[in-house]
Amino acid sequence: MKEWIIFLGYISWIIPTYSQIRYVNANQFPLIGKISDKTETRYERLPATLKDRCRPPLWKLGKNTSGLAIRFCSNSSTISAKWEVLNNTHMDHMTDVGCKGLDLYAWEGDHWQFVNSARPTGKVNEKQIIMNMAPEEREYLLFLPLYDGVVSLSIGVDSLATIKQPNLTYPKTDSPIIIYGTSITQGGCAARPGMSFSNILTRRLNQEVINLGFSGNGKLDYEIAGTMAKRHDAALFILDFIPNVNEEQIKEKTATFVSILRKENPNTPILFVESVIFPHSLYDKIAFDIVTKKNKALKQEVEKLKQSGNKNIYYLSSVNIIGNDGEATVDGIHFTDLGFVRMAEILQER
Amino acid sequence: MKEWIIFLGYISWIIPTYSQIRYVNANQFPLIGKISDKTETRYERLPATLKDRCRPPLWKLGKNTSGLAIRFCSNSSTISAKWEVLNNTHMDHMTDVGCKGLDLYAWEGDHWQFVNSARPTGKVNEKQIIMNMAPEEREYLLFLPLYDGVVSLSIGVDSLATIKQPNLTYPKTDSPIIIYGTSITQGGCAARPGMSFSNILTRRLNQEVINLGFSGNGKLDYEIAGTMAKRHDAALFILDFIPNVNEEQIKEKTATFVSILRKENPNTPILFVESVIFPHSLYDKIAFDIVTKKNKALKQEVEKLKQSGNKNIYYLSSVNIIGNDGEATVDGIHFTDLGFVRMAEILQER
Repeated sequence: MKEWIIFLGYISWIIPTYSQIRYVNANQFPLIGKISDKTETRYERLPATLKDRCRPPLWKLGKNTSGLAIRFCSNSSTISAKWEVLNNTHMDHMTDVGCKGLDLYAWEGDHWQFVNSARPTGKVNEKQIIMNMAPEEREYLLFLPLYDGVVSLSIGVDSLATIKQPNLTYPKTDSPIIIYGTSITQGGCAARPGMSFSNILTRRLNQEVINLGFSGNGKLDYEIAGTMAKRHDAALFILDFIPNVNEEQIKEKTATFVSILRKENPNTPILFVESVIFPHSLYDKIAFDIVTKKNKALKQEVEKLKQSGNKNIYYLSSVNIIGNDGEATVDGIHFTDLGFVRMAEILQER
Repeated sequence: MKEWIIFLGYISWIIPTYSQIRYVNANQFPLIGKISDKTETRYERLPATLKDRCRPPLWKLGKNTSGLAIRFCSNSSTISAKWEVLNNTHMDHMTDVGCKGLDLYAWEGDHWQFVNSARPTGKVNEKQIIMNMAPEEREYLLFLPLYDGVVSLSIGVDSLATIKQPNLTYPKTDSPIIIYGTSITQGGCAARPGMSFSNILTRRLNQEVINLGFSGNGKLDYEIAGTMAKRHDAALFILDFIPNVNEEQIKEKTATFVSILRKENPNTPILFVESVIFPHSLYDKIAFDIVTKKNKALKQEVEKLKQSGNKNIYYLSSVNIIGNDGEATVDGIHFTDLGFVRMAEILQER
């Protein structure tokens, strides 16, 4: 309290901190990370046409907002958020912040800089994300929950501050990277939404990265390939599905999945990603053998694709994806922020 | 299922996986990380004599098992655990695995290797940590919860396997490092128990590191200095309390705290650690100012100690402790595994 009074004496611009917060509906601001605008509600990933055509667990996971982010501009000295999540998800190996919180970044001239996360308390949440800022106009990027849906979202600013459409068109949205995959792709288990590897790439490349990670359900569903194929503007398709399919499914479905992408996108680069040799499988010999065999099956399928004349096919070996010290997962499988940073660095180098 | 049958055909040693689990009470195995053996129950940190002498929140946090780890040896093909926690802690910015789970490592000749974590389900838990191992004798290190207490703990092995006292006396316990500090020292917010910086150091140095981190309560209590001072065998005292004290408390209490340590340990090295300039304080100017002033006050106190003839006083500046990209925390303050690995590397270099 004493410190607070001392500060008040000479930092005049902090006064707005204590003024009333004005909330505006985030619906009016650009949303990046969607494969299609034709969704049932605004904050979800799969087009409404898939509702009765894809497997129900896939449809349900499509309502998780992984990879989605709001862009806005404000000169407020504080930023707050009110948000209601869909399922109030809790998982024992992931923080609630990562599952159902928000994560705010600001543009600093040449990079996106972490501002702070919004820690959720339940289904309906209100949090002040940052305060005591110099009241300068900044461009913001607000990442949405990785493992929950968003029913509604409002952004709060000082009552007299402006909040408006972004001035910059960053991250660039003209040629998105589209990543298809598993729980790891969806962001399991980043500590906060900004730390999934797709969101790290969004920032580092300053390029929209569309997340089609479906926890436990990256099973080469052809409806997803069809949805991806419609994005003729894609710069790159990354396919990271191995942990969710077995050897037979890899052999049976990979070529067809790719043919659906290729029909409308004959030259778009496709990067296949091997499954990480999960750290615990240094000891669990069956887990090791399963992953190794599946990676081998993937490599064979990719060779066949190349031999049949498919161009622009790339392959990322599991070596070094999350380092080799065994430290980068929470449970032997799902990545921590340490694992996601390492994976983003490997992908960025490609 | 098909894969399971295929494996059974040629890996005969996996058969014990499917045998019954035999649980043994972990009480019989060595426990590292305690400042004193004279505690009220086995799995807690503060000596019983402090019960009515220290502040109640400090006493309560002493019952959290951060830094404690069990050592045992087994040739089992599976390792399981049954454990009951004290409070069934949940925090929105930390995983349940980190708060109240377990984390298993094995000795691999020259380093401790991650095996897997045990994910908790509630107050009473039973989990198979690893299976399908070659049934070879291994030395294990099992880290206990960071933000909860342990009421009871049993370790499960295959019914016919051995589980016994460790053959090796690693991590070395003859000259422990003793770390005193805040929530960050206690391990907030590592994804699993092994990833707090004190536990990372335990493994990397193969040296017992005693954790006296007390969430929100690293307030230079003299009773803690007195408890630390009794460990004349300490190789190093690390003092990392800045986030929990204000400028006045630093000026008022640092010298006395050190004098208590020095009375019985005139030459033991003491490393003072500045507070990290928290990533969110790039924007929150008051947070920045408070931390900067407190670090400056610490530096002044440390200079005074040196000038008054105190030997073996070291100082770690906040620069680079968790890197400078702003990415290493979950909430602007508490470290993720990324932050803890970076901090452990900086400390290891010292």
